[in-house]
Formats: sequence, C-alpha cells, structure tokens
Amino acid sequence: MSRPAMTDNNTLSDIVSDILSQVKSRGDDAITELTERFDGVQLANLKLPQCALDTAQSEISDSVKSAIDMAYGNIKQFHQAQFPQDVRVETQPGVVCELKHAALDSVGLYIPGGSAPLPSTVLMLGATAQVAGCARKVLCTPPDKNGNIAAEIRYAATLCDINEIYLIGGAQAIAAMAFGTQSIPKVDKIFGPGNSFVTEAKQQVSTRADGAAIDMPAGPSEVLVIADAHANPAFVAADLLSQAEHGRDSQAILVSNSESLIQAVITQVDNQLSQLSRKDIAGDAMQNGRYILSKDLAQSIEVSNQYAPEHLIVQVENARDTLSDIKHAGSIFVGQWSPESAGDYASGTNHVLPTYGYARNYSSLGLADFMRRYTVQELSYQGLQNIGTAIMDLAQAEGLDAHRQAVAIRLEGRK
Amino acid sequence: MSRPAMTDNNTLSDIVSDILSQVKSRGDDAITELTERFDGVQLANLKLPQCALDTAQSEISDSVKSAIDMAYGNIKQFHQAQFPQDVRVETQPGVVCELKHAALDSVGLYIPGGSAPLPSTVLMLGATAQVAGCARKVLCTPPDKNGNIAAEIRYAATLCDINEIYLIGGAQAIAAMAFGTQSIPKVDKIFGPGNSFVTEAKQQVSTRADGAAIDMPAGPSEVLVIADAHANPAFVAADLLSQAEHGRDSQAILVSNSESLIQAVITQVDNQLSQLSRKDIAGDAMQNGRYILSKDLAQSIEVSNQYAPEHLIVQVENARDTLSDIKHAGSIFVGQWSPESAGDYASGTNHVLPTYGYARNYSSLGLADFMRRYTVQELSYQGLQNIGTAIMDLAQAEGLDAHRQAVAIRLEGRK
Repeated sequence: MSRPAMTDNNTLSDIVSDILSQVKSRGDDAITELTERFDGVQLANLKLPQCALDTAQSEISDSVKSAIDMAYGNIKQFHQAQFPQDVRVETQPGVVCELKHAALDSVGLYIPGGSAPLPSTVLMLGATAQVAGCARKVLCTPPDKNGNIAAEIRYAATLCDINEIYLIGGAQAIAAMAFGTQSIPKVDKIFGPGNSFVTEAKQQVSTRADGAAIDMPAGPSEVLVIADAHANPAFVAADLLSQAEHGRDSQAILVSNSESLIQAVITQVDNQLSQLSRKDIAGDAMQNGRYILSKDLAQSIEVSNQYAPEHLIVQVENARDTLSDIKHAGSIFVGQWSPESAGDYASGTNHVLPTYGYARNYSSLGLADFMRRYTVQELSYQGLQNIGTAIMDLAQAEGLDAHRQAVAIRLEGRK
Repeated sequence: MSRPAMTDNNTLSDIVSDILSQVKSRGDDAITELTERFDGVQLANLKLPQCALDTAQSEISDSVKSAIDMAYGNIKQFHQAQFPQDVRVETQPGVVCELKHAALDSVGLYIPGGSAPLPSTVLMLGATAQVAGCARKVLCTPPDKNGNIAAEIRYAATLCDINEIYLIGGAQAIAAMAFGTQSIPKVDKIFGPGNSFVTEAKQQVSTRADGAAIDMPAGPSEVLVIADAHANPAFVAADLLSQAEHGRDSQAILVSNSESLIQAVITQVDNQLSQLSRKDIAGDAMQNGRYILSKDLAQSIEVSNQYAPEHLIVQVENARDTLSDIKHAGSIFVGQWSPESAGDYASGTNHVLPTYGYARNYSSLGLADFMRRYTVQELSYQGLQNIGTAIMDLAQAEGLDAHRQAVAIRLEGRK
C-alpha cells in the first residue's frame, strides 16, 4: 500500500529558500523581478484593481455564474453549520474554565494558475474564511502573459468578499504573504494548493518563527473506490478517471471482492479514457493505479483503512452501513449517486483534504482551520482556596517555588 | 514588542538530523546506544515494566497523590466538555453533507526529564488523549542514571490509562515515535514540550512524509500581565516570577497605566526573588522582562494584542469586561485570584499553549488536537440531478472532462 515516493529534492529546497530570502529582504522589488522572470509579465501594480472585480460578473456566461453561485451557497451552508460552541465548566466551586473561539485575523489564500482557472478552490478557501469571519482575506494567484486573471476566479472572489487580490504566483507569493512586503500584508495562515515550488515554500515558512501557519501538508491527489458486484462499472471507471486526470502522480485504486466487476471496470476505463481531452495525463496516472481483489467487503474496508485515502468512494449494496467500520479517509462518498466530482465542486463539503496517507493524522479542511481556540479561567477567592493546596503540592513536587508562592501569597494575604 | 531571537542553529539541525537517520535505519540498537551516550545508562529493556506502574501509587506521598488526583479530575472534566458535535446538513434536496469526528488512533506523548519530574504535563497530554479515546497512547521520557523514572510520572500515567512507557529521551524518543522501531510503535501525532533537541526533532519529523504530525511549534514560555492601580503588587510580582523561574529565556511583561503600581511591583519582585530556590534563573529571565507604562487600559490591551502572549493575566477592576477586547492570547487569567499556576496545574485548562507569538495563529491544546475531522456525503439520484448541472459546468470551466463525465454518465444512464 505504499505510495509513489515524493522525492526529497535539495535543489528545489535551495531554489525556494533563495526566493524566500529575496522576498524577505527586498520585498516588492523582488516580487516584481520574480514575476517577470517566472510569469513573463511586467506588472506596474501587484494588486488587482477594484474595477477588475466589479466587471467580473459581466465577463462570464450565465451558466458558469449559476454554477459558481450554487456551489458557493452550498459550501457556505455546510461550513456555517460547523460553528463551534464555546464551553464553560465550573470544575470546582469558584473555578470557572472556558474554551472560546475566534476567527483568525488575516488569512492568505493561494490559487494556482495553469491551463484552466480554478474558481472552485477560491470558493473552498474563500467562503470558509468568510463564514469564519476573518477580518482580512488576501488572495494570490499568478497572472497570465497579459497580466490578467480569469474572470471566473475574480467572480468567485467577489462572492467571498475578497477584495485584496495580488497577481503573484509560486514561492514568491507564499513568501509575500508569510513575511509581508511594502504592498502585501503579512498573514497569520496560508491556505491552498500549488505546484512543487508552492508546497515547498509553504513548508519552509511554516517552520520559521517569522513565517506563517499553513493549512496542511501537501501530496498528490488520490481516490480509493470500494465496490462490490452491485456497482455500476461505468460509474466506477468514471470516478477513477476523474481522479487520474488531475495529474500524472495521481493515484486511483479500486478494491473489490468481485473479480467480474474489476474486469468490467478495466474495460470501461479503456473505453472512457480514449474520449478524454486529458487522456495522456489520465492514462499515465492509471499506470500507477491498482485493481485489488479482496476476499470480502470487510477486507476491502481493511485495505482502505490501511491506505487512508484522501477520497473514498463506497459503491456497494447498503453503502451507508460500511461507515462505522471506515477508520481513515479525508472525505467519504456514499453510494452510486455520489461521485467525487460532487464534493470537488458543488455539494458543500470542502475539497481541500489530507492526502498521501495524512488522512490518518490530519483533518479535512473546515471552519475550524480558520479559527483559533483559547482558554479563559476565573477563580474566586473560594475557588483558589479549593484548589490551592493541589497547586502548591504539585509545584513543590516539580521544584517550582515561585509557582507555589503565587498561590501562597494570595491565600496568606487574606488570613 | 519583538521577542528575543531563537537562533537558527545549523549544528543543532545537523545533529538532530543524524539522530533521526540512525533511529530510522537501525531502530532499537540506535536507541540503546544513544541512551547510553546521552543519559549515561545501559537499558536491558526500553519499555518500563508493568510492575513499575503498579507500584507507583505506593511510592508517592498522600498529599502529592491527592494533588494529582484533583488536577486529573478537573482536566478530564474540562476536556470532556469539549466533545465536538457531528454536523449533518442537506444543502440541496437529496444532497446530504456530514462532518464527523474520530479520535486519532495512536499518539505519542513526550515528557522531558531534568531536575524535577513533570507529572502535570503527563496529565495535560494523557488525560486529554484518554478523553478523546485514542486507542494507543505511548509515553516517552528519559531515564535517570539508574534507569528509573519518577513515581509521580508513573502514577499520573496510570490515571490516564497509559501503559506503554518507554525510557527514552531527546531527539531519539521523537524519532522512535515518528518512525517506529522493533519495540516502539509508530504514532500518528507527537505531543509535548522538550529541550532544543526535542523541539528540533519534532519540527523535522513533522515535515517528513514518513514522520508524524506534531502538536504545535515550540518557543520559550511567557506571561504578560495587564494591571491597573487596583492590582495587588505582591500578586503581580509573584505571577511574573512564576513565569521567570521556568528558564532564562522566559519572558515576563507587565503593562500598566499606573506608574506607582509598576514601581511597587518592581520592589516586590526584588523582595520575592531573593527567596526563590531558582533565583538565578528567574533573575536572569527578569532581565529580559519589560515594565511598560501605558496611557490607559485600552492601550494596555492594545499592547497585549500586539504581543499575543502565551499567558495573559488581567488584574484590573472589572477584569471580565476586558475579555471582549482581547484578541490574541493562549490562555487568559481573569482577576486577582487567578494566578498562572492555577492553569499550569490544577484548574482544568490545558497548560500546553501557543507561545512566541503563535497565539495569533495557533490554538491552545485541547480535545480537538487528539481528534480528526472528516466529511461524508451521500447524494440520491434526485440530489445529483439538482446539483449535476452546476458540477458539469464548473468541471468544464476548469477543463476537467472526466469530472464532468462522472456526472454525465450517471444522469444519462437513467434517461
């Protein structure tokens, strides 16, 4: 069940480290130079002008606008339901302990460039930050050769109340948001996917005291499908391929207790693959894929739990009954009418998920990632009396006099 | 408001990286050698025998036992109240999205060694893991010269149902839990404080795909006290000193709008300092301390928000009224009867907190850190019809054919 190795690349690490140093020391000047070098465009302003946001809606088709609107509404609704409850407990008479929640002040959202715009990722990050109530939302995305960004991205940003968009990509964008420059604010936490330069830069700034927190470690996207003889092979094949088209390093795995289903899926994959515009990429990725024959459903689930997939699709009879046995997965798609693309785009769940086995120890992106938890305590004099002896005895056992004294001096003062 | 720099130390990084490599490649043999070298003890068994747990209670005084029991009860009660609610939302008819929570499978808890045992840290990590329901809890702590660990630590561990204790300290302990060895299980996430080798090792394993997640970045402990003319200078001084005695790099800061209060606190610090057993350490730390005169309470709060202290003590008239203006702090102690030592030991709040400015973007340790969040979605055929067009239009806008096809093939199949 081991994944294809992500190569540790010292050259990449050095290049990124150098970019971070340049941005840290020279700010906007370094950004402008790096943008010219990597994106081939000279920018007079790093910040997207407000008018480019105002006109976004008029530049997209009605159908794409409706699609973005529906996805935005569903994502917002699901994340609004995630608001955490504050907690207040009186652990002993006069000892009140509270857990409180607050939105992060400022967040940085990275949206990759490339051949096609990714408005869905703007919504996944932006709507969640908006629901959390983050006061400042900064979005960085690389400009095209003409210094523009896609209208779909601009429109999605306006829905999420994002009005600070910077035309910066790559490691330099991460550096700008982590350290701040003359024109780009330093943020508390950076979110979003990216190429190897972006993910390396996120990792580097996350371990620097002058950097920023990040959402989660990155890895190639992946899906595991558990299917039985009741599954529709065409649906299963379509789900495997929709993962495979993401990139050559994507993993698509089918685990089934039905040999005939596996054979039928293989045939379907071949048929459907030939019709895809990204058939080269998807075909290469399918070479890394696996078709695993299990002895029964329980073993299929065991394989999935061991692999801990980012996306898990369960196309078996009574699919919901499997949920109690599934231990590790970023997001679970239940039954034949729940393709991965539903969650990727429009159902309301977040598509930023732990991959590469991180579903064991990291969470799906959610409202909680845009908030902080902190505690409050308030003791009355009686409360301090009630736990004072315990505090003093523990402080003494740990050899911390002054900790003991901070209680003793208060209790003595009232004697 | 800048903090004393934590020096980036390439030598430290190399030493730790070498220790990780040794443990990764040679497992238990490397651990045994490193323990002999660093802790000066040859261990026949890395694992603490069960009998050493069984006898712990009989080896400690009744007063320390009572103190540990009370702290354990309060910590457990406060963290039990933090159980998150699962979420279920039907975002569109037939489109059900859920957020679910599960305990991490296996966690590693690191307890530093040194001059005095730290049972309180065992409780902060162990009771929280126990409440979360983590199936496997591994504790590592360095042995003393005789190969033993303090009875207080063993007793606290038994309360938390920890029965796997390994006599390993330093970077080698972090490596053992991150990678696993012949006798030590690989864990999903590592928690706990430590010296510079431990914190460097935690940072390194947290960025390796074969490593483990960690609780939060580390830094020197710190307190900021906001006080006004109504505060008791002896209490304020005791609180500053109880922070200062942690280590020479600890920071203790007083912000007050009352010059006479500041003067009185300085006098009290001098008086109380001379009576402390750790007066050398606390005295050195107070050299890094600051006494800041503000023009009013609002400015005191502004200073604190900018500093984002790990511990914030508010000793002003009507202290609770300040809470709505306080933005960044790991844990807030309200009023004169709430010394930091209450939260360090026994009130019920967790003493593992974001320091070094990380209170801006990281959370106080809590139940959530021992759990994972994941999502589930289930669409009916009608549900897929309702959002299918939006999915297909977005997939097309992003140039992802196969994503579109996974919906189209399902909807066409029923026509």
